[in-house]
Amino acid sequence: MTTTTTTARPTATPPALDAQALWQKDRDHFIHPFTDFSVFLEQGCDLITDSDGIYVQDAKGNRFIDGIAGLWCVNVGHGRAEIGQAMADQATRMAYFSTFNNLSNAPAAELAAKLAELAPAHLNHVFYSCGGSAANDATIRLVHYYFNRLGKPNKKRILSRNNAYHGTTYLAASLTGIESNNWAFDTLDHLVTHLSEANCYRRPEGMSEAEYCDHLVQEFENTIAEIGADNIAAFIAEPIMGAGGVLVAPEGYHKRMQAVCRAHDILLIADEVVTAFGRLGHVFASEAVFDTQPDIINCAKGLSSGYAPLGATLISDAIYEVLGTPQRKGGVLSTGFTYSGHPVSCAAALKNIEILERERICENVREVGPYLEQRLKTLSHHATVGDVRGSHFMMCLENVADKETRELLPVEARVGDRVAAEAQQRGLIIRPVGHLNIVSPPLIWTRETVDRVVAILDEAFTATTASLRKDGYL
Amino acid sequence: MTTTTTTARPTATPPALDAQALWQKDRDHFIHPFTDFSVFLEQGCDLITDSDGIYVQDAKGNRFIDGIAGLWCVNVGHGRAEIGQAMADQATRMAYFSTFNNLSNAPAAELAAKLAELAPAHLNHVFYSCGGSAANDATIRLVHYYFNRLGKPNKKRILSRNNAYHGTTYLAASLTGIESNNWAFDTLDHLVTHLSEANCYRRPEGMSEAEYCDHLVQEFENTIAEIGADNIAAFIAEPIMGAGGVLVAPEGYHKRMQAVCRAHDILLIADEVVTAFGRLGHVFASEAVFDTQPDIINCAKGLSSGYAPLGATLISDAIYEVLGTPQRKGGVLSTGFTYSGHPVSCAAALKNIEILERERICENVREVGPYLEQRLKTLSHHATVGDVRGSHFMMCLENVADKETRELLPVEARVGDRVAAEAQQRGLIIRPVGHLNIVSPPLIWTRETVDRVVAILDEAFTATTASLRKDGYL
Repeated sequence: MTTTTTTARPTATPPALDAQALWQKDRDHFIHPFTDFSVFLEQGCDLITDSDGIYVQDAKGNRFIDGIAGLWCVNVGHGRAEIGQAMADQATRMAYFSTFNNLSNAPAAELAAKLAELAPAHLNHVFYSCGGSAANDATIRLVHYYFNRLGKPNKKRILSRNNAYHGTTYLAASLTGIESNNWAFDTLDHLVTHLSEANCYRRPEGMSEAEYCDHLVQEFENTIAEIGADNIAAFIAEPIMGAGGVLVAPEGYHKRMQAVCRAHDILLIADEVVTAFGRLGHVFASEAVFDTQPDIINCAKGLSSGYAPLGATLISDAIYEVLGTPQRKGGVLSTGFTYSGHPVSCAAALKNIEILERERICENVREVGPYLEQRLKTLSHHATVGDVRGSHFMMCLENVADKETRELLPVEARVGDRVAAEAQQRGLIIRPVGHLNIVSPPLIWTRETVDRVVAILDEAFTATTASLRKDGYL
Repeated sequence: MTTTTTTARPTATPPALDAQALWQKDRDHFIHPFTDFSVFLEQGCDLITDSDGIYVQDAKGNRFIDGIAGLWCVNVGHGRAEIGQAMADQATRMAYFSTFNNLSNAPAAELAAKLAELAPAHLNHVFYSCGGSAANDATIRLVHYYFNRLGKPNKKRILSRNNAYHGTTYLAASLTGIESNNWAFDTLDHLVTHLSEANCYRRPEGMSEAEYCDHLVQEFENTIAEIGADNIAAFIAEPIMGAGGVLVAPEGYHKRMQAVCRAHDILLIADEVVTAFGRLGHVFASEAVFDTQPDIINCAKGLSSGYAPLGATLISDAIYEVLGTPQRKGGVLSTGFTYSGHPVSCAAALKNIEILERERICENVREVGPYLEQRLKTLSHHATVGDVRGSHFMMCLENVADKETRELLPVEARVGDRVAAEAQQRGLIIRPVGHLNIVSPPLIWTRETVDRVVAILDEAFTATTASLRKDGYL
């Protein structure tokens, strides 16, 4: 057989795009996720067409610093031709074959071993999916299967947290605790119970951070007492809550929650879809940053830096022992996806991890991250900036009407949108989420980039304050 | 900005693989979907490492005709360097940016318009996912949202069918009606009711095909009467049932089921994950083959020929009108995935569709498909071949112990596995599913390929008969 990888040739010039025609096609045919259709049907979308390193460019030729890494994804930065090449080579050599039953492919095998090497020592088994939603969904299915196999069929309830974000399959959306996310959608309320989020900025008045931690752990224990540990399968948590507002839990919280899990035979699932692959300065944050050893870690996004859809669920040896025991003669573990272990996605991830290691990108985050935190905190003098929080390359600014009372501006002030729009006019994309602005950049920002970004944000907040005053909101 | 697509260079020689090391890594770390661990832990997997056109090759250098298109996926065939190149170009130019809210990308916009052009006239709106499971899951979420918004919050129940395969998210697995698939897993039984599958080969004795069709339609009507149309949201069906055994419904079945749906305000969802993109000789089968106009069509697999993970839900203008009306000021349609409209996956799909059209691959299926059917039927003289069914490039052979009574061989005879193993030894991969053998090849098979395949199968069935006799099963 002639392998045909040699036939791939670079395209000399990217084809010109008809921006207006594409805008119309998008407006008429693409149902965008998380979209306000009153705006979309009138204005349509900006097309992001080009990218390079820390930059993206729209179809009109506007260039922006990407302050959100696509959507917590593009950790190694844009325009990495070597990842594209690895994908082309694999797609041409062997793009796809089933990984069901007794068949596999080289990149999926290689990546599974690499992930086991990078993960905490007891997490050696990888279940693949195509993204965070599917990874979380599959995890709960496997956890239920695990307890069914152990003869504990009542252990079904999943404890999640208010403002958690775990995705949007039917089950993942049920795990998600952001109220507005499920407006007019259905969720599986019998299956999921939400604890309080760990929100140090808005903790009960007069409570120290240590007391707040006690309070949250006590709530967990009370909830277990109420539902019964025999009815609870797992507790799922993001190490730092992402879309829910980049909430950093009080010191020691995760370790204490883990201890409660262990005491009650409740599995600990870390949703590291955002935090894994360097965002907090380590490949996985659970053990390196928070000193926890979850039973399961989910990842996606940074796993491939978003170059190809891919998710992975890392499973402990102890759980695998149960999953790997056939339930009956000839019985199979009847779950998984056509694209579980997709060769091209796994090849993209392998090259991405190679870059992450070769360029010491985690080291860069550990070096530049504290500088980003420190410099963003200098924005606290602006009228609306009530809180600057997060860690390393996962940061958030919370806008308020009154810094003393922490009262919010009215929703119709759209303060997050205003700040984001002012930043975008000045060449920086950050993410508005209600009254919040999230900064979650590619992990290749330097101190110099941080200085440029903070200068832009400084102007953006000044302009926002002025416009809010003009409109009578301040 | 310098776009960097020019830097992609072909890799001259594919790297050599250490087959034994990869085997071990796979065995130790990859949790394979739908796998019998009693076999896997002992034997591990064969690695499919190379491919070209209708062939794949394993790490030991064995070459096979791919009789399953990877897994109903690789419709345009393996080793298409131009798809790999399109992916590399897009990955290098702009690999990923969020499509949430007011941002989009060129390939996603282009593909949405292309799908609207190819689909039945009223299906003009595309919701993207990364595969069939997620597409079906998202569809049900959107259907519930639709009825909630219409003020019909009780319309929730989904009618599916026994032996249907709709994937393995928590919800998709609940839609799936293959009993063994959900052994030891949980399903959402309050949400899904399964009707009988349409199985002409095993229909009640003495019933004509027309009477059988009446019978199935009547069951549908009875079920609606029992549950109440006010409590039913949708009926989901594969045009030809795939993993459930390539079951072709009686003439007129789908059109009559559609009429019942319309009469009761029940949405019709066609799961065309397997049938779309040419397998039955048309881009979509619903209208072209079965003369139905579903409210929603789901596709995946052949959409990208499996070169990249991608799924798409095609939604009618009437439903979009409701989805596109914000539920409140500033309210967003809060669902979708990070990788909805992934630029690289959409670029792969666009190139795949270009090839499908340029090489007139649907025409090839319409030409060669009937020949494949006719030639596979010549295998009916073998002792175990009870039924040869399917349509065009979606075929199945059902093995039985007794052709008269249609009684099955005992499970432990593993007849499907035996036939598949005999075929594989002779250079052909087909899929065993229990006592069935599925043939679902790339759509580029010629008459000459069919002749070679049928010659191999003829030998494989002869050998299987001999081995079953030797082991006392026949």
